[in-house]
Amino acid sequence: MSRFLTVISVADAAAAAEKIAPARKTESVPVEQSAGRVLASDIAADTDIPGFDRSVVDGYAVRSADTTGASDSVPALLTCIGRVTMGKHDTNLILGNAECVYIPTGGVLPSGADAAVMVEYTEEAGDTILVKKPVSHGENVLLRDEDFKKGETVFSMGRRLSPQDAGVLAACGCATVTVAKKPVVGIISTGNELVPATSVPGPGQVRDANAPMLAAWLSEYGCEPRLYGIVQDEREAFETVIARALPDCDLLLLSGGSSKDDRDMTAGVIAGKGMVLVHGVALAPGKPTIIGRIDTKPVFGLPGHPASALVVLKVIVSPLLDKMLGLDTPLLRTVKATLAENIPSQRGREEYVRVKVTNGIATPLFGKSGLLNTLVKSDGLVCIPAGYEGLEKGSEVEVILW
Amino acid sequence: MSRFLTVISVADAAAAAEKIAPARKTESVPVEQSAGRVLASDIAADTDIPGFDRSVVDGYAVRSADTTGASDSVPALLTCIGRVTMGKHDTNLILGNAECVYIPTGGVLPSGADAAVMVEYTEEAGDTILVKKPVSHGENVLLRDEDFKKGETVFSMGRRLSPQDAGVLAACGCATVTVAKKPVVGIISTGNELVPATSVPGPGQVRDANAPMLAAWLSEYGCEPRLYGIVQDEREAFETVIARALPDCDLLLLSGGSSKDDRDMTAGVIAGKGMVLVHGVALAPGKPTIIGRIDTKPVFGLPGHPASALVVLKVIVSPLLDKMLGLDTPLLRTVKATLAENIPSQRGREEYVRVKVTNGIATPLFGKSGLLNTLVKSDGLVCIPAGYEGLEKGSEVEVILW
Repeated sequence: MSRFLTVISVADAAAAAEKIAPARKTESVPVEQSAGRVLASDIAADTDIPGFDRSVVDGYAVRSADTTGASDSVPALLTCIGRVTMGKHDTNLILGNAECVYIPTGGVLPSGADAAVMVEYTEEAGDTILVKKPVSHGENVLLRDEDFKKGETVFSMGRRLSPQDAGVLAACGCATVTVAKKPVVGIISTGNELVPATSVPGPGQVRDANAPMLAAWLSEYGCEPRLYGIVQDEREAFETVIARALPDCDLLLLSGGSSKDDRDMTAGVIAGKGMVLVHGVALAPGKPTIIGRIDTKPVFGLPGHPASALVVLKVIVSPLLDKMLGLDTPLLRTVKATLAENIPSQRGREEYVRVKVTNGIATPLFGKSGLLNTLVKSDGLVCIPAGYEGLEKGSEVEVILW
Repeated sequence: MSRFLTVISVADAAAAAEKIAPARKTESVPVEQSAGRVLASDIAADTDIPGFDRSVVDGYAVRSADTTGASDSVPALLTCIGRVTMGKHDTNLILGNAECVYIPTGGVLPSGADAAVMVEYTEEAGDTILVKKPVSHGENVLLRDEDFKKGETVFSMGRRLSPQDAGVLAACGCATVTVAKKPVVGIISTGNELVPATSVPGPGQVRDANAPMLAAWLSEYGCEPRLYGIVQDEREAFETVIARALPDCDLLLLSGGSSKDDRDMTAGVIAGKGMVLVHGVALAPGKPTIIGRIDTKPVFGLPGHPASALVVLKVIVSPLLDKMLGLDTPLLRTVKATLAENIPSQRGREEYVRVKVTNGIATPLFGKSGLLNTLVKSDGLVCIPAGYEGLEKGSEVEVILW
């Protein structure tokens, strides 16, 4: 009975996958739709931001020296000589000694002024303004180019854009922005036991949970999943669907049935049409992973258990996706926690155990790898490196959140 | 000069907003597109999952008693009487004493068997199988209904669905699922100083960073933002845009210019067409927040500084969105960290300070609230409650991640 020919380490498998990543493609999107997308070029400020000295309060533009020593009992008395209009720069408005100008938040600081006093610390008496608190040079003022200087690199290529970044991009003059195109990932389910969600499973049958789970995961990750349905374990039917999917996709995930026969067929089909690079990884769950290539497209054979398939996505497929996206730092959310129980592990393979995290305590959810319920009850995974025989209760661990 | 008439607490403002939340609307989406959406009804398993006793390994279905004491040197000798075919239940396949059946992962455990032996611990010798390791009752078998029982509530209404949940939904027979409809949020920018990203700002002008930032934030939060452009500070133009946006949106955000005049106009327009419920919140940044209602629709006047607008979204608008979505737990990602510096604060108002988190250390990014650069450099916010005069260096804080 055949075994895995060569089982390689997780790091080697991930590196093998990354090596066959197709080249990044780019597209332009409106900035307001850019959050979560990966920047495809450096962005520089096209002007100083702001473009002028701006008040950050509603109040009066003043010469700070005129307010020295001002207090409630001995206010500085300034003459108000005008108002700053929002969105305009009145170059005729020039402050002399003991003069001030009403200025709204965001208004252009008039010539001669070097600070702004909040309206809360002033009192009007006709044209005279009583200032009851001193301000220092530059106080309550945002200087021209204080935020970003013209020509300065604001964001570097490879950054995953946040909503705040969308605002900054707009400030830099980008109504649209060039980002990595979402990798198109085809998902083909195989397995004679699989029926779609719409069917009532007959004896020995189960519904295909993996394909929608993988698709949903890929969408969240920033890919465009395409579902090609369930193919029975017949080589010809399988090859037909692969041939149909391949031209439209950047990579393919063959979501395996759970049986060995099925995995062997998957490997056989990939080998027949292209090349199998990896078959078997020192990873639990996820050992029966296949990495191959047909034409120039990466093709993965994923294990049949949902938990195993997700672990393989996280640790082996995502580095390839990151490379396709040009992402500068992996999209891994982690949280530190203390282990509530011992986790035994087998030396020589990297093991991922599902855990539930409550108040900084990570409780392992042991259980058969075919179970869905531990998958949805868990918050993430704890990794036991290949060189360890387990982790002890009370250890500080890094939980990789789902 | 008019001041804020009544400044209310953040909790009261958030409660006031939540109170005017429009009723949740629902829609049906394919399960593979359901991640991030909020479940609109309870989901029960329509069948036992799995529907039969399943092997979780490739190997042999056995009677566990037949393997007692088996070892490498003294294997149990069993007669292989057949193979389990994936996706079928052969009711004629019944195990007698010292018999076994080849079974692939996911295959139906045949009658008479109560466990499965991994193929790795067996050896073939014609029809005789040498089993070199004992298995206990139920070992390597997933029992019928072990994952979910028919009729059991699998997910409750209000759950934010994960990719794994999409898989479980499919297993429960849902090809589509009813979720909360994305709230449609209109964004109208006001301020005479504002120009769109496509324009080069003239003297005294700045580009509108807030509208795209708010839109991107809302998209990530699970809303459908609609941008209505920039309206100059003219009451009539403002009213016209509001009248146009209102019928198409569930709520409106008026992204204020930064000046007091502009905020007063916003409040005036809301009061003229509907009702101002809150004008001024004991929140920094975010004091000049307006909460109102026109017809049955909530209308928010947001402060003009981007950082302030985001804080108001997080602490005041999101509880209303959560209610509209029917979300059971707020969408707040936090991380514990140690404060690197003292943060002074003014008693009587809730203050949110931007921090950068590195290796568990939260460093405050002080700076003028109009700055964009501290906003994009920060990882999240630390809240200083209204009753505090600040937080001390070394304090353990909860960082609300962006």
